[in-house]
Amino acid sequence: MANTLNIQELVDRREAYKSLEAPFYTSQEVLDLDLEVIFKNHWIFAAVEPELPEPGDCITVEIGNVSVLLLRGDDEEIRGFHNVCRHRGAKLIDEKSTTIGNIVCRYHGWTYNEDGELILAEHMGKDFDKSCHNLRTVHVRSIAGLIFICLAEEPPADFDEMATTMAKYIAPHDIANTKVAFQSELIEEGNWKLTLENNRECYHCEGNHPQLTVPLSEFGFGFSPDELDERRSEDVAKYAKDIEENHARWEACGLPSAEEEHLADVTGYRTMRLPLMWEGESHTVDTKVACKKLLGNFSRETTGAKLGGLSFWTHPNSWHHFMSDHIVTFSVLPLSPGRTLVRTTWLVNKDAIEGEDYNLENLTQVWTHTNQQDADLVRLAQLGAEMPGYQPGPYSPYTEPHVESFAAWYIERLKSHFAGDKKVQVAAE
Amino acid sequence: MANTLNIQELVDRREAYKSLEAPFYTSQEVLDLDLEVIFKNHWIFAAVEPELPEPGDCITVEIGNVSVLLLRGDDEEIRGFHNVCRHRGAKLIDEKSTTIGNIVCRYHGWTYNEDGELILAEHMGKDFDKSCHNLRTVHVRSIAGLIFICLAEEPPADFDEMATTMAKYIAPHDIANTKVAFQSELIEEGNWKLTLENNRECYHCEGNHPQLTVPLSEFGFGFSPDELDERRSEDVAKYAKDIEENHARWEACGLPSAEEEHLADVTGYRTMRLPLMWEGESHTVDTKVACKKLLGNFSRETTGAKLGGLSFWTHPNSWHHFMSDHIVTFSVLPLSPGRTLVRTTWLVNKDAIEGEDYNLENLTQVWTHTNQQDADLVRLAQLGAEMPGYQPGPYSPYTEPHVESFAAWYIERLKSHFAGDKKVQVAAE
Amino acid sequence: MANTLNIQELVDRREAYKSLEAPFYTSQEVLDLDLEVIFKNHWIFAAVEPELPEPGDCITVEIGNVSVLLLRGDDEEIRGFHNVCRHRGAKLIDEKSTTIGNIVCRYHGWTYNEDGELILAEHMGKDFDKSCHNLRTVHVRSIAGLIFICLAEEPPADFDEMATTMAKYIAPHDIANTKVAFQSELIEEGNWKLTLENNRECYHCEGNHPQLTVPLSEFGFGFSPDELDERRSEDVAKYAKDIEENHARWEACGLPSAEEEHLADVTGYRTMRLPLMWEGESHTVDTKVACKKLLGNFSRETTGAKLGGLSFWTHPNSWHHFMSDHIVTFSVLPLSPGRTLVRTTWLVNKDAIEGEDYNLENLTQVWTHTNQQDADLVRLAQLGAEMPGYQPGPYSPYTEPHVESFAAWYIERLKSHFAGDKKVQVAAE
Repeated sequence: MANTLNIQELVDRREAYKSLEAPFYTSQEVLDLDLEVIFKNHWIFAAVEPELPEPGDCITVEIGNVSVLLLRGDDEEIRGFHNVCRHRGAKLIDEKSTTIGNIVCRYHGWTYNEDGELILAEHMGKDFDKSCHNLRTVHVRSIAGLIFICLAEEPPADFDEMATTMAKYIAPHDIANTKVAFQSELIEEGNWKLTLENNRECYHCEGNHPQLTVPLSEFGFGFSPDELDERRSEDVAKYAKDIEENHARWEACGLPSAEEEHLADVTGYRTMRLPLMWEGESHTVDTKVACKKLLGNFSRETTGAKLGGLSFWTHPNSWHHFMSDHIVTFSVLPLSPGRTLVRTTWLVNKDAIEGEDYNLENLTQVWTHTNQQDADLVRLAQLGAEMPGYQPGPYSPYTEPHVESFAAWYIERLKSHFAGDKKVQVAAE
Repeated sequence: MANTLNIQELVDRREAYKSLEAPFYTSQEVLDLDLEVIFKNHWIFAAVEPELPEPGDCITVEIGNVSVLLLRGDDEEIRGFHNVCRHRGAKLIDEKSTTIGNIVCRYHGWTYNEDGELILAEHMGKDFDKSCHNLRTVHVRSIAGLIFICLAEEPPADFDEMATTMAKYIAPHDIANTKVAFQSELIEEGNWKLTLENNRECYHCEGNHPQLTVPLSEFGFGFSPDELDERRSEDVAKYAKDIEENHARWEACGLPSAEEEHLADVTGYRTMRLPLMWEGESHTVDTKVACKKLLGNFSRETTGAKLGGLSFWTHPNSWHHFMSDHIVTFSVLPLSPGRTLVRTTWLVNKDAIEGEDYNLENLTQVWTHTNQQDADLVRLAQLGAEMPGYQPGPYSPYTEPHVESFAAWYIERLKSHFAGDKKVQVAAE
Repeated sequence: MANTLNIQELVDRREAYKSLEAPFYTSQEVLDLDLEVIFKNHWIFAAVEPELPEPGDCITVEIGNVSVLLLRGDDEEIRGFHNVCRHRGAKLIDEKSTTIGNIVCRYHGWTYNEDGELILAEHMGKDFDKSCHNLRTVHVRSIAGLIFICLAEEPPADFDEMATTMAKYIAPHDIANTKVAFQSELIEEGNWKLTLENNRECYHCEGNHPQLTVPLSEFGFGFSPDELDERRSEDVAKYAKDIEENHARWEACGLPSAEEEHLADVTGYRTMRLPLMWEGESHTVDTKVACKKLLGNFSRETTGAKLGGLSFWTHPNSWHHFMSDHIVTFSVLPLSPGRTLVRTTWLVNKDAIEGEDYNLENLTQVWTHTNQQDADLVRLAQLGAEMPGYQPGPYSPYTEPHVESFAAWYIERLKSHFAGDKKVQVAAE
């Protein structure tokens, strides 16, 4: 009967290191606010450049009720537009991905060039001023091939810091010379924040992700020191030494590896390169590379294939894993309070040939299984959050600190909004 | 976040010759108002008489949450009732079309005669007064076979003017001696007003309707004079002369042909008979008649088959095309803010035999294709209207004046409602 | 346009012996209130004990947005818990029915024992107090094998009276020694109160339930005395005598048979044992027993199989029929204003062998057909209630008094709620 949900009150009373109160996961009002405050006013990971490699290539990305058209122009630049005609408002590009010359509305033929300028509109009479009817633009930035967009008029400025730092980490994996080997879209039956929270801890991995955990150390994602016996304490020390040695080796190959954590920034992010266990080449079920042709300048002769896994997490909607032979990248987009789209893209060297250099099933199976397993956990968490028996429960200080970072960032962004922060405000519509 | 949508304000600030603001297409509140003010207080095209040709024939029509039962009585009159039992409220007739004696409720057997009078109700005791439990009636009028209904207690009185005028145009096509050759129900994924706006212009036809445009002149539906070169100016003049000559010939055959436009009336409508190109007999892909047996008194010997196409458009929910050999008639009924039912009915001479006098596919293909193409355009327009990037855009003064007429009529009807016009008011329920 | 539905006003103005106003059947607001006031604060029939016969057997029951986990412990007791983990709120048991040791959350392995106590939670650190994170409990009571649950902190106390009375009626049918022969779940497209109202009268039976009415007297469920002719008056007298004789015989066998009516109590119920017609053994299409092995101590030699049908109806959500050879039991659970789950369970002697002692189709067909027929009537009633043409109509004083009892009880419970009755209040959440 909570007809007059006071979101600001819920925001103000949120307790640290506890999961959020139920309406944050279940209410349409909160989702509307999330879309306005979080998704329309922050940098959102939208796509990778290999999804639109050539001039004229065009993709569409749906963020809440906004469809964004991304188009690579003849100058190789990627531009973003609101995907809606300025005449009678028809959606311009209906396909997820296509190749076009100009942007032509199917309804009455209004035509826009690659800068979004209206260049043709029949029957409008001689007093009609085409220049008043150009497409509305959207901010677009690429970090070494990862495309971020922002729907705000003035996007958060600290994107530059993330871009500068992350370009160094990502560049060696050379996204420009990759291709999309596979892309999946999975709809999780849960709130987008449950999807993110699930991603920000591996406490649940051991019991749920048999494929994912093969090349991961159980100590890579936190543990309670109180629960270590002598033998496991030795394992922890050995793993710490292993990281130290690998970081030195990787840095020598030109691969930044140290952890960078900026999870409280407006454009919050974190990165880290961690070793892989066993054969230690890639994140696959046999831990060997899935693609013979390595990425960028990597080679068995020079760098070797054992380059660990570089992970990159961003608020509010992405994570990415970069190995020596392939990249897996994830974007999360809310569909409704209880439904969330997870788009996963696998990239390999653009010269690699399927069936010869890589087997698609072997390349994709770790995350295909893991995504499905996570979707099931998110579904259970959503079902629980919808019950009155649900109460916020405690996060583990050892295995769930990044869940807390995400929740704290989210709450802070809403507080900023309610405080009227001019940099992140809801557009008056 | 527009929780307190002020529809009256939106109505008041609507700019002429611009598409409506987004909430008119997307909001449940507006649809509720549309159903009350427009659909429950105006004359709605519901069916054609050949759908219930014999006494006892009964059809049901759903307008928003109102189900209307139309029944042809033993006296051949068609009566309309709210399709709900006066006992425990069960829907009486569940089928779209059936033949009955009395109206018997399946639940407990309460029985009403063809005047809607309760004539049987068991176990109610001797003090029960059956006469207090008759069915609630609905106004029904037929214009030469086109059935209109009105749910208001006092329907708009200017229906009489439309009826008087239009009976002359339609009567020669003799609906009483036709039969339903085919009926289709298509759900368009858009607001009912987008369906209407789409119908009120042919600016979009050339790029989208290859079948429909075969027998249509490109000048029949408006053009910008500024964009005519010399050759096309000659074509325009030739087409105007063609109309003049045909109108004279048709009037001589007893077929009123001149344009009548009453689009600002409460019961707004427009009609016009236009020539068909090429063979010019009918609206088919080869432009020849689809049915050998012509309608009414038409014959190759007397009137000839080249009788053009008489079109009849009504606010808020119908259009109709009458040719020498067949009639196509359309009713539009809102299902939700983003879903609309379009019911299309094809009529031919009741003595025509399928496979002999007409081929069903040839008869129906123009509008089956055109409806589907329009549905796709309406879907794109709805998708666009749902995006915050949508803004009302300009109508062409040359090709979209009737879109403006419809939008202006709609806005005027809402203004009347807000002004408390007694003739068109929302029933207190 | 009823944006500000005043439920309390609707409750106050309800007229006796008339169906409820439309919002009671159609509004989400009313359903939310029903779930809070009726379903969370009264005793709800949830299951029968044979659904979880052994220690470790566990079933889940969904009441509105509450999932309840029912678990039979090693001590044979059945306990109820909110089915949601105290850590991150995942739903604990996802299956409808399963067998478990402890209750283990799949997400992060938190483990609860059969008393709902948290006994394992890794990585939480040494300051974490497990005893603060036990499962939240739900009240559970069994009447001779029928399991009722209550979500309120203080359940209605008058359950004890119903339990004491009904245990005597039900015990001879010995549910403990039955098994579930079949269970069906049917979703009716109507409000839960229409499902109940439909169940509380047999005025509709003659015209709609050919299978159900075979062994029922037309006089068993009310009739208008004004409509009896002389022959039928004799039939009525004969039927009354028949009941009297049978009651005497059954009481002598230890079977309480007299009608008990407590339909105005907070825990409202009614029971009665009635004769069956023709062969008169059981409620089947041939009126003979469907299962050769009779229930409890019944036998052809001692009690005979002609033990009539004991019916038991409870507010707000169940009815049950007990014959000499089988039991059919029904629970009704709202899913949305217009959708309701009806779960039907058929019980037979646990030693009976399918195909030998009973034929499943013969056992289930009366109620499989009847449920489907009722679902169709409820659908029509819902469709009617959703129309503005619907108005509350009169109940028959002869055939619909128990519909009135249900409606009056429902209205009274809401009045109690609005009056702030401490025994039945909405939990502050």
